[in-house]
Amino acid sequence: MKKIIGILGGMGPAATIDAMEKIIKNTPATCDQEHIPVIAVSFPDIPDRTENILSGGESPLNKMLAVLRILEAAGAQCIIMPCNTAHYWHDELKASTKIPFLNIVEVTCNKIVSEGVNNVAILATTGTIKTELYQERLKKDNVNYVVPDDIQQGIIMESILAYKSGDGEKAYQLIESVITQLKNVGVERFIMGCTEIPLILSGHGYQDEYIDATDELVKMAVAWSYLDNKL
Amino acid sequence: MKKIIGILGGMGPAATIDAMEKIIKNTPATCDQEHIPVIAVSFPDIPDRTENILSGGESPLNKMLAVLRILEAAGAQCIIMPCNTAHYWHDELKASTKIPFLNIVEVTCNKIVSEGVNNVAILATTGTIKTELYQERLKKDNVNYVVPDDIQQGIIMESILAYKSGDGEKAYQLIESVITQLKNVGVERFIMGCTEIPLILSGHGYQDEYIDATDELVKMAVAWSYLDNKL
Repeated sequence: MKKIIGILGGMGPAATIDAMEKIIKNTPATCDQEHIPVIAVSFPDIPDRTENILSGGESPLNKMLAVLRILEAAGAQCIIMPCNTAHYWHDELKASTKIPFLNIVEVTCNKIVSEGVNNVAILATTGTIKTELYQERLKKDNVNYVVPDDIQQGIIMESILAYKSGDGEKAYQLIESVITQLKNVGVERFIMGCTEIPLILSGHGYQDEYIDATDELVKMAVAWSYLDNKL
Repeated sequence: MKKIIGILGGMGPAATIDAMEKIIKNTPATCDQEHIPVIAVSFPDIPDRTENILSGGESPLNKMLAVLRILEAAGAQCIIMPCNTAHYWHDELKASTKIPFLNIVEVTCNKIVSEGVNNVAILATTGTIKTELYQERLKKDNVNYVVPDDIQQGIIMESILAYKSGDGEKAYQLIESVITQLKNVGVERFIMGCTEIPLILSGHGYQDEYIDATDELVKMAVAWSYLDNKL
């Protein structure tokens, strides 16, 4: 059997499904049996990541570790975690396991740097922005990036929460207004640095100007599955 | 935490994702944490079910049992298997576990009988048709059903395999031709009795005339998760 991709999921549940769909789309299979085996543990009751970062609510780490243990025992051979904000705890999770644990921020920034992308805006939760997950790496590589101002960031967070509450249309209207403002000040590319954002924008024909962090993570996992690379 | 739904999946991988999406759609949640926890083990290399039934290829049972053991160990509290043909082995799988194991054929036929549906055609793999999974139950309850003739059934199977090979448009054209023929001989309702069929027809606006077996299975699992029913 091909090597098994484990998904530390549920943050949110739709983003877990989006990652699984992207695994299928990125796999050149002509029948069921050629697809990559996946174990997805989607536990949506993992405490809210942004809430913990901003106001010290319950830490999600213990529940994320519990899911990681389940994935290990079930036989996962590589872990992906389709939630950008959760990567604030990536180092601790990675240190606790012997299984390769890909990093969505690293993989996405590698693409940005290798393609020489500039004037890129970071669309993410307020938790991800506050922890500077993307900024630190982009700064290091001299990538010229834009972070939404506080009002814009508030609207983006409202959009993400609207999507999670089931109101996709409201979510789109909100984020679209900020994207338009950012384009008007010279932003050329957008990092979809929250796994809900590709879902909010899908169906509205998003194009090459968007860098889909989920898709980059999945492409790396699929490549791992085929190439047996050490990560 | 809410009770965990386990998915014995990968038959095919897209049908597993479809079931997960339908769990979200059928759950009245307003944030991540209100969603139902799901463990999906999607192992697409489970041998082809129809091939085994028709020509005695490798039995899928051992690999299905292995997935069931993983789901049990991971903590799943109820099992669903989004593949109609695989239900040929449902009794053996169910007998091997203490966890409630829902039956897609039973749940779907219960709906058909309770709603007094008649003149219903069974759209399914040739394996499902040959094993009479649906026919036996519908016969018992005096439901008037239609099974596609051999030529039509060949086209339906070709459609399902086209979808599994990644050609959704060809899959739709093929099955649509058979559906039109069946409507012309008085069929009023259609059982989408293969988990790939809702995927083939989605995006083409399928309506109330279709009974989606995956959706019925998922609704029962969600109800189980909320009601703590013994099944």
